[in-house]
Amino acid sequence: MLLYDSAVSGNCYKVRLLLAHLGLDYERREVDVVDRSGRLELLGELNPGLRVPTLVLEDGRPLAESGAILWYFGEGTRYVPEDRFERAQMLQWMFFEQYSHEPNLAVLRFMLHVAGTPPSEAELEPRRRGSYAALEAMERGLAGRDFFAGEGYSIADIALYAYTHVADEAGLELAGYPRVLAWCERVREQPGHVLITA
Amino acid sequence: MLLYDSAVSGNCYKVRLLLAHLGLDYERREVDVVDRSGRLELLGELNPGLRVPTLVLEDGRPLAESGAILWYFGEGTRYVPEDRFERAQMLQWMFFEQYSHEPNLAVLRFMLHVAGTPPSEAELEPRRRGSYAALEAMERGLAGRDFFAGEGYSIADIALYAYTHVADEAGLELAGYPRVLAWCERVREQPGHVLITA
Repeated sequence: MLLYDSAVSGNCYKVRLLLAHLGLDYERREVDVVDRSGRLELLGELNPGLRVPTLVLEDGRPLAESGAILWYFGEGTRYVPEDRFERAQMLQWMFFEQYSHEPNLAVLRFMLHVAGTPPSEAELEPRRRGSYAALEAMERGLAGRDFFAGEGYSIADIALYAYTHVADEAGLELAGYPRVLAWCERVREQPGHVLITA
Repeated sequence: MLLYDSAVSGNCYKVRLLLAHLGLDYERREVDVVDRSGRLELLGELNPGLRVPTLVLEDGRPLAESGAILWYFGEGTRYVPEDRFERAQMLQWMFFEQYSHEPNLAVLRFMLHVAGTPPSEAELEPRRRGSYAALEAMERGLAGRDFFAGEGYSIADIALYAYTHVADEAGLELAGYPRVLAWCERVREQPGHVLITA
């Protein structure tokens, strides 16, 4: 398998983390996330969305969007619950992550940590507000629970962990979210855990 | 079942369209999408994301995020393929829709058609550019295909149709996307189809 990857991307890290849990081998091809010229040539035939991660299976079929790749490898393993409601609850958090969390935390982190051009306060402020709203939603979601969906650690936790655990690189402060901080610890304790820098 | 709904919301329409295909009954409770005050009181116990659609099942369990609700009701029916790759391909387009499509087309439509306060060109322009990029991705995705995932109409088509078919209300022109236009026709021909205004 070949993963069109970015070492710094949390979306790519989600895939690398699940594949590490599952002990699956793959090649990594680094894609520039700052200079996006040439994306159509590189990924156009593989992923109409032209984003990383894009994964090419051993039989040549391509798959994209971190949540869909997590689903593909997770289904049938301990990382995706079997119960219909728990599966939907897991997807609820994964869609929340892509709609309400990633566009705030990941974009802030990109502006402050990756892009290399200093952003204006007007660019930062709405993302900061959205980030804290997403963290508040996570704090509410963890009330009385160890993990976000079903009974244990699932791909919803992988999806939400990717950008939450590097919130400091987005200039965010997690101290006000004790359930989120304790959950981050529980994620790190899972067997086969790897760092985003691995 | 009770659907916290908005008549004008494409995300809510996705749920209403699938439930119509499946012939399932439910109550609708209209939620204001312009004045969002009181959302925490109304939805806080049901959906940490505080968005509509939020659905309360007959046994009282809540479910949110349009894609997760579509999955819950679609799994095991003709609207979700059984093959593992086709399921992932379907989710790929559903995540694409929430990340790259809805934040552009739906937000433009909200600004021009729903909010009631005229937006500036600086607010419109990046969303317009993002909308046409998403439509180009859809046009590429439909090459040689009638529907986005698997062999037939699925919940990925429902998800993408919701805001695509009202692109005119977002000030967008679909004439340059012949495959998208033909696909919209095919979606409308599905048995049990209902309009967004139904």
